[in-house]
Amino acid sequence: MQYSPLITELIAALTHLPGVGKKSAQRMAFHLLERNRDGAMQLSNVLHNAMEHVKHCQSCRTFTESSLCDICNDPMREEAGQLCIVESPQDVIAVEQTLEFKGRYFVLMGHLSPIDGIGPNEIGLDELEGLLTSGKFKEVILATNPTVEGEATAHYIAQMCKTLQISASRLAHGMPVGGELEYVDGNTLMHAFTGRRAI
Amino acid sequence: MQYSPLITELIAALTHLPGVGKKSAQRMAFHLLERNRDGAMQLSNVLHNAMEHVKHCQSCRTFTESSLCDICNDPMREEAGQLCIVESPQDVIAVEQTLEFKGRYFVLMGHLSPIDGIGPNEIGLDELEGLLTSGKFKEVILATNPTVEGEATAHYIAQMCKTLQISASRLAHGMPVGGELEYVDGNTLMHAFTGRRAI
Repeated sequence: MQYSPLITELIAALTHLPGVGKKSAQRMAFHLLERNRDGAMQLSNVLHNAMEHVKHCQSCRTFTESSLCDICNDPMREEAGQLCIVESPQDVIAVEQTLEFKGRYFVLMGHLSPIDGIGPNEIGLDELEGLLTSGKFKEVILATNPTVEGEATAHYIAQMCKTLQISASRLAHGMPVGGELEYVDGNTLMHAFTGRRAI
Repeated sequence: MQYSPLITELIAALTHLPGVGKKSAQRMAFHLLERNRDGAMQLSNVLHNAMEHVKHCQSCRTFTESSLCDICNDPMREEAGQLCIVESPQDVIAVEQTLEFKGRYFVLMGHLSPIDGIGPNEIGLDELEGLLTSGKFKEVILATNPTVEGEATAHYIAQMCKTLQISASRLAHGMPVGGELEYVDGNTLMHAFTGRRAI
């Protein structure tokens, strides 16, 4: 005995969502059918629209439904002459929330990972080179994640900047604010010592 | 700084799913946009179809896209003369998996809960009465959940059966098979004593 074909299909389709297995999908399907058909219809429409219209910004590669995202469209952002390089659109929001950075972004949509077949062209480093040779930017800030792949990517882009004679910097590693020394891992503590500043 | 309007809308729509908050919705939206646009399109179509076509079975009230579900359509099922009353379509599948029951079902789609405004008509007890007076069923098996509301619902339906002179039984309460006496809760153990059988 199985559910009716359409319900079985709905449960299978819901497992396309990350972190949703068969049991959760079943719970979601019945919740929507019993209690929130309007919400489900809305989700169906928005999913369709988003998958059809959301593309990459032509300049910074973040997700947007316009040809240029809001930040790339803002002339004030270009004046700063700074380019922050991040791995994902979520990272742009995280940096924006600091209110510290007033320049533009370049979103790699991933990181170098030769083992998965992700080389410089897959993360748009050819487009980045074009952007850097335009002469609009005086400084590149490398804000890739502090992981092995993120560090390798940052290193690769730093070399590129050196060739193009643009100064590049990397976000500081060290103690998180509000953290306790006792609970900071050894690697981070080592970086915090190496990067110590005179006060 | 926010995501583009369409992405913000997508994140909001994904929170219609049960157990999905803002952070998970964000992760889902970016996963679909980056890695599974085909899956998202399929989900959008299936959601639309299911919400439009899945209705209640005219006889047993379970979810189905036909006017009668597979079980109600099967004449062999009616011959058994037994009607099993459950709270949800998921319960039908659970009972079917035992391969023990060969009769038909009636799905309440909930339980009596006066405090939430759910009375006999909301759980289809008028339809159930029509079904029972048809003379097709000789026995009613009450398989509502062993919760306060489930017990109250079973009691209400048992009274209805008494008036209509149809025998009604309730699923046995007792020790779960493979369980250990030490870890069974007192209430269940009490029921297991009361319901003890000669061997």
